[in-house]
Amino acid sequence: MPILPGRSGEAKGAAAPPEPEAPWLIALASGAAEREAQVLVEGLRLQGVAATWHDLGHGVICLPAAQRVQAEAAVAESGLAARLIRVETPYRLARRDALPQGSRVALGGVEFGGQRFVVVGGPCAVESRQQIQTCARLCGEVGIPVLRGGAFKPRTSPYAFQGMGLRGLEILAEAGRDYGLPVVSEVVDPAHIERMYPLVDAYQVGARNMHNFELLKALGDVDRPVVLKRGPAATLDEWLLAAEYVLIGGNSQVILCERGIRTFNANTRYTLDLATAVQAKGLTHLPVILDPTHATGRPELVAPLALAGLAAGLDGLIFEFHPQPELAKSDGPQALRPEALPGLMAQLAAVAAATGRRLGAEA
Amino acid sequence: MPILPGRSGEAKGAAAPPEPEAPWLIALASGAAEREAQVLVEGLRLQGVAATWHDLGHGVICLPAAQRVQAEAAVAESGLAARLIRVETPYRLARRDALPQGSRVALGGVEFGGQRFVVVGGPCAVESRQQIQTCARLCGEVGIPVLRGGAFKPRTSPYAFQGMGLRGLEILAEAGRDYGLPVVSEVVDPAHIERMYPLVDAYQVGARNMHNFELLKALGDVDRPVVLKRGPAATLDEWLLAAEYVLIGGNSQVILCERGIRTFNANTRYTLDLATAVQAKGLTHLPVILDPTHATGRPELVAPLALAGLAAGLDGLIFEFHPQPELAKSDGPQALRPEALPGLMAQLAAVAAATGRRLGAEA
Amino acid sequence: MPILPGRSGEAKGAAAPPEPEAPWLIALASGAAEREAQVLVEGLRLQGVAATWHDLGHGVICLPAAQRVQAEAAVAESGLAARLIRVETPYRLARRDALPQGSRVALGGVEFGGQRFVVVGGPCAVESRQQIQTCARLCGEVGIPVLRGGAFKPRTSPYAFQGMGLRGLEILAEAGRDYGLPVVSEVVDPAHIERMYPLVDAYQVGARNMHNFELLKALGDVDRPVVLKRGPAATLDEWLLAAEYVLIGGNSQVILCERGIRTFNANTRYTLDLATAVQAKGLTHLPVILDPTHATGRPELVAPLALAGLAAGLDGLIFEFHPQPELAKSDGPQALRPEALPGLMAQLAAVAAATGRRLGAEA
Amino acid sequence: MPILPGRSGEAKGAAAPPEPEAPWLIALASGAAEREAQVLVEGLRLQGVAATWHDLGHGVICLPAAQRVQAEAAVAESGLAARLIRVETPYRLARRDALPQGSRVALGGVEFGGQRFVVVGGPCAVESRQQIQTCARLCGEVGIPVLRGGAFKPRTSPYAFQGMGLRGLEILAEAGRDYGLPVVSEVVDPAHIERMYPLVDAYQVGARNMHNFELLKALGDVDRPVVLKRGPAATLDEWLLAAEYVLIGGNSQVILCERGIRTFNANTRYTLDLATAVQAKGLTHLPVILDPTHATGRPELVAPLALAGLAAGLDGLIFEFHPQPELAKSDGPQALRPEALPGLMAQLAAVAAATGRRLGAEA
Repeated sequence: MPILPGRSGEAKGAAAPPEPEAPWLIALASGAAEREAQVLVEGLRLQGVAATWHDLGHGVICLPAAQRVQAEAAVAESGLAARLIRVETPYRLARRDALPQGSRVALGGVEFGGQRFVVVGGPCAVESRQQIQTCARLCGEVGIPVLRGGAFKPRTSPYAFQGMGLRGLEILAEAGRDYGLPVVSEVVDPAHIERMYPLVDAYQVGARNMHNFELLKALGDVDRPVVLKRGPAATLDEWLLAAEYVLIGGNSQVILCERGIRTFNANTRYTLDLATAVQAKGLTHLPVILDPTHATGRPELVAPLALAGLAAGLDGLIFEFHPQPELAKSDGPQALRPEALPGLMAQLAAVAAATGRRLGAEA
Repeated sequence: MPILPGRSGEAKGAAAPPEPEAPWLIALASGAAEREAQVLVEGLRLQGVAATWHDLGHGVICLPAAQRVQAEAAVAESGLAARLIRVETPYRLARRDALPQGSRVALGGVEFGGQRFVVVGGPCAVESRQQIQTCARLCGEVGIPVLRGGAFKPRTSPYAFQGMGLRGLEILAEAGRDYGLPVVSEVVDPAHIERMYPLVDAYQVGARNMHNFELLKALGDVDRPVVLKRGPAATLDEWLLAAEYVLIGGNSQVILCERGIRTFNANTRYTLDLATAVQAKGLTHLPVILDPTHATGRPELVAPLALAGLAAGLDGLIFEFHPQPELAKSDGPQALRPEALPGLMAQLAAVAAATGRRLGAEA
Repeated sequence: MPILPGRSGEAKGAAAPPEPEAPWLIALASGAAEREAQVLVEGLRLQGVAATWHDLGHGVICLPAAQRVQAEAAVAESGLAARLIRVETPYRLARRDALPQGSRVALGGVEFGGQRFVVVGGPCAVESRQQIQTCARLCGEVGIPVLRGGAFKPRTSPYAFQGMGLRGLEILAEAGRDYGLPVVSEVVDPAHIERMYPLVDAYQVGARNMHNFELLKALGDVDRPVVLKRGPAATLDEWLLAAEYVLIGGNSQVILCERGIRTFNANTRYTLDLATAVQAKGLTHLPVILDPTHATGRPELVAPLALAGLAAGLDGLIFEFHPQPELAKSDGPQALRPEALPGLMAQLAAVAAATGRRLGAEA
Repeated sequence: MPILPGRSGEAKGAAAPPEPEAPWLIALASGAAEREAQVLVEGLRLQGVAATWHDLGHGVICLPAAQRVQAEAAVAESGLAARLIRVETPYRLARRDALPQGSRVALGGVEFGGQRFVVVGGPCAVESRQQIQTCARLCGEVGIPVLRGGAFKPRTSPYAFQGMGLRGLEILAEAGRDYGLPVVSEVVDPAHIERMYPLVDAYQVGARNMHNFELLKALGDVDRPVVLKRGPAATLDEWLLAAEYVLIGGNSQVILCERGIRTFNANTRYTLDLATAVQAKGLTHLPVILDPTHATGRPELVAPLALAGLAAGLDGLIFEFHPQPELAKSDGPQALRPEALPGLMAQLAAVAAATGRRLGAEA
């Protein structure tokens, strides 16, 4: 597994003293050469400025408030196109003004965060080779460009189906290759990251692991996208700070996913918090998608909420379908049937066109 | 104030024994003549069946489970086109199958519940004649077909601005007449209903009064639409039962309005529960609209969530704008500025067209 | 119904401009003569200070921040024992420092807010004379000093038992007289207040009416205690501001009651928020009691939570019991059986003794 | 690290098919000899019954519903004192009827789950040798029998103090030895379990890791108590199923800890859900304690809620104190000051005596 270059594990967070004053970012303009920026960081360090370099596409330098004046002088002297930003939010690298044009995160050839609205679909769990091959074929037929499927299933009950493990991922990866679809699957243990690396195009962090900081730290070391679901009780800041754990590790490829929060309302499995997803899109440079399947647990609500997310300006959708929901080993009742897929995609395409966008797989 | 015909106040609910078994509805087909249906009810009563007649556009007869067989025979004999429905939900008259084609509720000439997506706009509170005239003119310019404005304000603090009262409603009604806009305003006390009657085209029941059953009962006696906001802690069933209080009184013109629920998420004032609004649309025959202004308290989220509600299939939108939000006497920070209105309406029109619909004021 | 003296309805709240700066209170020491304080207010007004007089037992004068200097001089000159308090909370008259020794609120001869822990018990609803006579007798036998019973029932469903109305209150009042117990019952409409006046020793405002501001304003005019339940979605500030609506009207006899909030947890009917009840006790001078019956809907949790509330320092308890819960017309499953009462009272007495207190009816 | 005997990792949960019908337990009476019970299990397996043996103090055998008749015959034939229980809850081994007398879980010599109410205290984080020595000394002085302190801190922000790691645990263990106190500390990664084993008397699973199933599975393999905090959005069933993950692994020493859930109420950090803690005590055989420090984040609420938990019948308390809260590296504002400890312990002792119990360190 190619570990990201220039990472030193021991520097990560451990025993950092609480920082009383808001730090500053130096956000480099998109034309800035990385080499020159690195020279700037080295120059700052020689002057005693505790600057750290972070690659978010175009480079961001983080430094303590007390050393801002020195940094301003150094930036001016360097001639680099850069803005200094006062960071009054708890998250730093995830801020939109660190990268105003927004991040683009690519799974295989499919890009999140641009004009296209990307649909990710597939079953809750990988159950068999035949099931996944069928799902991949259906994706191809209706124009779903990314395939999902869980192999390590974090289940509420120890008596429930726990997933096929690595064998499931091999089945998923094979189907992805056969049908030209990048694949995404959930990771539940830092110890699994390396073995999953050759088999997935993106790691999904499930809602129940959003606060598993050891897992987030470990994913900061990998050069592969992370789909980070919001925890069911997580505030916006907590969600963005979870992303920050990955970004600070050096992995800038994070996709945020809203999948419902826990509220008193028991008519749906969770309560889709669309407003917070829209806020996350505005406050950060990260792509934001929604998961109406887990948010509601009701297949009849998937299409209306998917359309809502698209109309509200989000970057994509992850949802569950199953060739035969009644035979599914987990969460069958919330999966869409194959016959519902063409209609969903057609509706999405119409609303995408009306808002100046296209679906991920449209020509 | 014209009280609905055939209503006897003392029959309303008081001291009804708990009903153990699910009752039945006789839903008349849309061609059924009301006179003949009334004959059927009288016939049933003569046979000892405790049938009650409810006018939901086409007529519904409610009866106890134990008397279903007699009712079936009477319906068959009458030759009326009608379906018998077992009511297993706590609400009865609000059920979609009582009126599968859906209710149409008209405010002035503006109809909710059909193909058109209806926008209601205006300030939080009526503050002056000039302010409301400006708002009404803006509505006319951008094509907002219904004007809102509060005159009796239920405020959390007794020290906050409590509204202009009846004088405010006169100002609102005048502006409605001047610009050809039906108007809606909040009612907070049963004792106000009669005096408000000549001045408003619809009564709004605010979220904090959704469980004010005396107010709901009193509105059941009026022949004027009721916009019923969901309480911030109300379940779907509780919301629909609040509507049932109005429907059972004889007033079938209820518009449901989702305006956010209270959750742990404090980044927005409340959490817009779009999924439940979509469910309400499917489970009842009543029009359902959304209020992104109160749901979020953030003007920048109004347009994305309004578009989301339209794309998800709701019937309309109520939102707040103010000629000068910084001078507003209540809730100014959440109001849209006038310059934001044309863009909002244009975006809504584009998504409406993509989903086979039109805005309320489009030709 | 004796309306409180010196009240002018039209002055109440209407159209008050928003007040930007925190106001000040003049809290008179307990020895201050009311007549002299009134003289002070009049003197302040003659000087142009917008002072208002409020009777909270010992008298509080409220005034705008801009006129504090004049007020200080006037207080000094008057020679009255008084403290000036800057009010930075949204509520003013409910603040503990307005009356540091705490309010005592008496129902008949039973006082809330002192050393005694007061138990209020009875059925959810008044159902018959016999039922209430039995309940009153049981209260007498086990030492429950206050009787509760609902006659106007705010029910979620219009098809549920709505209460016996005034006839129920007559039954309740009779039982109270027969057994020497003050009685409390719920009020749901401002129009009922006057007729209820001769029949109840305290008005209860139910959780669903905590935000019925017209009802709260009307109760501010009455010289009788109000048991104010917290709304299921009400914050601490909202709850205290609801009390403020009553206090500002001139009625200082408010008892706060925590009865559970709405959360994701569906194992209990609501979630008892004991911590907030304890906070309310610290922040205000009002007595605070808890209602474990409605908070949980589970009779087996009533005793543990009642003991918890006592140990945590609250002022009392309101709970439901029924001679035959299985025959109750409303909420039977949550009522305690008569045989559970002696044990509950004995446990409460033991913990009361351990914390230096006594039960309300102990000698 | 002594791994529990008879555990085969690969048998754990993986790929178990969904079980449609409620299984059965054979709960052995307390006098039953383990050897004879093992014989029974082997005999059942020879007959084809898929029985599994679980050691919960006195032994429980779990088997599928379809094989109940065979099991009944085998139990009768064996002559063992045992009851067969139909398991209609999602959790099986945690059920109270599996061990009606309740589990006793010992940390060092301190037992949870019996007559004594056990207090666990200490700082949020281990910060220095001196700090922990002071804390341990204070515990000894006031009679707190168990010391807590975090060394691996799961922090919302990657920029916050992350704990001293293993060095912190060594400091904690040393202080425990010096003052004769068992110690408990949080574990955040399965990879840390083995290294922590010699240094802690119990592993704490924090609220944010309650759904970290890989961690729970790994703790099922260890012969050391686990303090399992409830997740802030976890239902009662989810909490008990998290315990079940540990129990099914073979580790029966689980202590449940209620530490507040996430609700709309922001006046306290979380909302202490005392009712659910009491329910957990009734539904399971596991000891249940409460953590008022994290539940509220307010030191002034610790004593009232601690007393409440004791009066409500819980088994103990975990709370935070700090020699100098204003210097703490994490969560200082919620820690009690040393001078508050004697009063807290005295109040607890008084209420314990009133309810027929004693504190953990009382003679």
